[in-house]
Amino acid sequence: MFIEIGDFLNLRLKQMGIQHLFGVPGDFNLSYLEQVEADAQLEFIGNCNELNAAYAADGYARINGFAALTTTYGVGDLSAINGIAGAYAENVPVVHISGIPPLHVVQKGTLVHHTLVDGNYDNIMNCMKEFTVAQTRLTPANAASEIDRVLRQCFLERRPVHIQLASDITHVKIEVTDRSLDLSYPRVEPELLQSAVTKLCEVIAQAKRPALLIDNEASVFGITSLLDDLSKKCSIPFASMLTAKNIMDEGSPRYVGTYVGGASQAHVRQTIEQSDCLMGIGVRFTDVGTGVFTHQIATKNYIEIKPYGLTIFGQDFPGIEIGQLLVELNKKVAPRKLSQPMLEQHAQQILEVPEQQKLSQDVLWRYIAGFLKDDDVIIGEVGTSNSALAGLKLPATAKYIAQPLWGSIGYTLPALLGSLLAAPERRQILFIGDGSFQLTVQELSTIIRHGLKPIIFLLNNGGYTIERLIMGENAAYNDVQDWKYCEIPHVFNGSQDYKSCVVETAGQLKQVLENMHQFDGMTFIELKLPAMDAPSSLKKFASVIARFDYGDRGYEILKQRSQALPSKKAISF
Amino acid sequence: MFIEIGDFLNLRLKQMGIQHLFGVPGDFNLSYLEQVEADAQLEFIGNCNELNAAYAADGYARINGFAALTTTYGVGDLSAINGIAGAYAENVPVVHISGIPPLHVVQKGTLVHHTLVDGNYDNIMNCMKEFTVAQTRLTPANAASEIDRVLRQCFLERRPVHIQLASDITHVKIEVTDRSLDLSYPRVEPELLQSAVTKLCEVIAQAKRPALLIDNEASVFGITSLLDDLSKKCSIPFASMLTAKNIMDEGSPRYVGTYVGGASQAHVRQTIEQSDCLMGIGVRFTDVGTGVFTHQIATKNYIEIKPYGLTIFGQDFPGIEIGQLLVELNKKVAPRKLSQPMLEQHAQQILEVPEQQKLSQDVLWRYIAGFLKDDDVIIGEVGTSNSALAGLKLPATAKYIAQPLWGSIGYTLPALLGSLLAAPERRQILFIGDGSFQLTVQELSTIIRHGLKPIIFLLNNGGYTIERLIMGENAAYNDVQDWKYCEIPHVFNGSQDYKSCVVETAGQLKQVLENMHQFDGMTFIELKLPAMDAPSSLKKFASVIARFDYGDRGYEILKQRSQALPSKKAISF
Repeated sequence: MFIEIGDFLNLRLKQMGIQHLFGVPGDFNLSYLEQVEADAQLEFIGNCNELNAAYAADGYARINGFAALTTTYGVGDLSAINGIAGAYAENVPVVHISGIPPLHVVQKGTLVHHTLVDGNYDNIMNCMKEFTVAQTRLTPANAASEIDRVLRQCFLERRPVHIQLASDITHVKIEVTDRSLDLSYPRVEPELLQSAVTKLCEVIAQAKRPALLIDNEASVFGITSLLDDLSKKCSIPFASMLTAKNIMDEGSPRYVGTYVGGASQAHVRQTIEQSDCLMGIGVRFTDVGTGVFTHQIATKNYIEIKPYGLTIFGQDFPGIEIGQLLVELNKKVAPRKLSQPMLEQHAQQILEVPEQQKLSQDVLWRYIAGFLKDDDVIIGEVGTSNSALAGLKLPATAKYIAQPLWGSIGYTLPALLGSLLAAPERRQILFIGDGSFQLTVQELSTIIRHGLKPIIFLLNNGGYTIERLIMGENAAYNDVQDWKYCEIPHVFNGSQDYKSCVVETAGQLKQVLENMHQFDGMTFIELKLPAMDAPSSLKKFASVIARFDYGDRGYEILKQRSQALPSKKAISF
Repeated sequence: MFIEIGDFLNLRLKQMGIQHLFGVPGDFNLSYLEQVEADAQLEFIGNCNELNAAYAADGYARINGFAALTTTYGVGDLSAINGIAGAYAENVPVVHISGIPPLHVVQKGTLVHHTLVDGNYDNIMNCMKEFTVAQTRLTPANAASEIDRVLRQCFLERRPVHIQLASDITHVKIEVTDRSLDLSYPRVEPELLQSAVTKLCEVIAQAKRPALLIDNEASVFGITSLLDDLSKKCSIPFASMLTAKNIMDEGSPRYVGTYVGGASQAHVRQTIEQSDCLMGIGVRFTDVGTGVFTHQIATKNYIEIKPYGLTIFGQDFPGIEIGQLLVELNKKVAPRKLSQPMLEQHAQQILEVPEQQKLSQDVLWRYIAGFLKDDDVIIGEVGTSNSALAGLKLPATAKYIAQPLWGSIGYTLPALLGSLLAAPERRQILFIGDGSFQLTVQELSTIIRHGLKPIIFLLNNGGYTIERLIMGENAAYNDVQDWKYCEIPHVFNGSQDYKSCVVETAGQLKQVLENMHQFDGMTFIELKLPAMDAPSSLKKFASVIARFDYGDRGYEILKQRSQALPSKKAISF
């Protein structure tokens, strides 16, 4: 059949389950946007800027599976690239469609706007290659095969891809088959698979203290229930990395806690580091995930299971795909009885505090722990929010979204827009600091524009608290301008009703949380918090990372001077 | 002498005339920021996000000569890169200082946050190489020479450079000489220079209709007065490119107007295209600068003078520097009498319109023409503002700032912050549309935070008018959410007094402009304008560029469908 290139691309996006396309219009993608506009199953969500569009697509993909955004060449692409890179770092499959100048312009090097005006049309693609797993510049001759190649790679690797669609070929018709996009994994050669499974069955049978250590890719590749089955059948305890918050049921009797190297609770550390058969699922040992490299895991006890790679005690099995491996393993592995008693789960206690007590991080998160419920989507900005939420036991079916590895501040507000559009029926709750909020504030307007109803907690602690904990406690460079945050929803002018308020005491917080269910609309709560108040885990991490970042000698020099020098300016908050 | 690496870098920045450093803090640049904080001659201006920081640095450099910004590795760099690329495209010398992870981390490929967690520390640098003229990763061994090499290249090419400064070496002391940074041009070999000057003198003497066509680099490389001398001595008429608005005195009797290819006024086109000795100064013939490639200039009549390159009627003179060339040429060239009468300048007329008349673009710009005065800094966002201002005769000493080639919407608001800090004593006036304003709105907070006092005209025409003119007049994708714009200064909460108002009629505009001088503070004026109203030059350009972007066939298909299909949503404004 014949189909216009842009329509074919949209057909494929819909086959991936994508129903919303994020982005910002520009002359080079208007012809494509006309095709989106004409498509009843695909809605364009115009963002306030392109970085926010990329963040929104990321948040959408984390719930929906896949996401797409469109930008205009050069200016739009480069504005979005930080969000694309973040999606790469955090394993989020986002399709980036760039509307580029007409094909003849690109091929001849004609000097047009949104370029360096030097005839170079490779620079944007060169940048995108660094942060995507597949890229293509579509032509009428290659579009039928290239669209499928690139989107399939997005599926297989669950990471961003980049598609350049020239403004003058969107409406050219190409011939395509009526086959749907192939969204299946290549089969692993049966003999290889059996040899790997046999080996794994042996080592699990021989192990005295097997354990599972689970990272984010388990969720991304949809294998958490297979891991739960394995854990159950063989009574294997499991811990999660910080970057895999709540992807497994934290209420499971086999869940021991979060592993963060030397910063872990003692029983978690013991379970993981003293295991003689530790199965790491997509684990990445990073500074933020290991208490700054304080993990102690011996290769001789370590089995690394990646989406397309398996290493057992140092021996590689190239060509293994994780889903097929776990299905076979769960069939063949011998059941085990519990070799050591599991740790009891302690329920978190809500301490009653005097109503007049000034709000603090400690009080805040105790109350929030009791406020969260099943099926919530909970989003925590890096800094105090993510650190505190990482330490809370979340309801089993709650989804947690954060960007702990890439750590681009401001990410969560646009990501919330994306997650809201992906699951408007779920209660969605954002926790974000004032410093972070200022980077991407305008995307609240898009949330309001579409009548979405999140609960937003704005933690106003007068600047970049995470940075103050690392360096420059009183430095002006860590201050931000204090805004009248609660008036922002009004300025963005939605037709829907909303509520906003400022919370300064424990009693006010309690009241607000208790009344929340009575209102069906967006709720925006500004929480006044002390500048240097933070979860103890973050305080500890900050002091360790400071020595790591600046070196011991640099750290000592900086601390001395910082204490000796008066600040140039008073803190604004 | 021994000096800490960060302090040495700051010493060099100050020698370039830089007194403000833009940016956003992050753990990898905090040690460097401590050195900035301790430096009494250098002020850190914390931006709301990194793209805004890059735009602000660009605006600062356009007035101050040079500018610098600092970001943290990965997240910050990639957020800023669109602003860096814009500075490259538009010849703006900006020094980008990235605080990167400790040197041993980078060298060993240790897995830390703000990276793809794959040990690759080349990807950011690879991107930066595409949009900067020199780059370096500082080490204690190379810092003394590399800082000078890179900054000197920034001076010589007047384009961005990128410096990676590891968080653990900022405070390492290195030995340097006490020589200042070399900010002089390499001398051109005298014999070559004389041969070029002799040739130019000959061709000018023989020419019947010599003319000068001047682009932006004439301003960037500081040679406008040399060009004026040449024009005067030889009675050579000159025109400016669109991208060189008001860099030469538009009141000069030898100024003929703006050259935009076939879209030029007839006498401008005649002067340029029929010249038998047309000297183009740094001219780039782009789509936006030539009415979409409708210029007709023959190589046999064309002399191309670039900062470091000269081509006379197709014959190259490699090794020529423009400043030295013009100095010698002005000495040697024989004076000429005017061979044809210069065109008379027509004063622009302010038409009186009824006070109750709804505001329109036509009325607006007639009033604005009378409002602008000497020494103003005038900033026009791409779209209706830049198009209209390009057509106005500006006061001779007014500085005009726009980004017509790179054309990244949202650029001007942060650029205004930069230009205000570079010249706080000048009256500065921004014209920006609602769509553009939404991309970078938060930087108004930084303008307010520093007590700066611009006049901001917000042209509210309910979305992306320039895009509507090209495609999708009624399409939802060209709508933006309508904000209560006038309340935004209040939300950003400055201690200084400000004024804001909404203007809907000609009479209101007249009144506001007349009263402006009575108030010493920031003024924010929202102008309500019809969605499809635009300067006629922009309307014409839009229809030509649409056919160029989508091809004749694509354009016809799109227009037909666009008119046939009902819009999915009502326009919000």
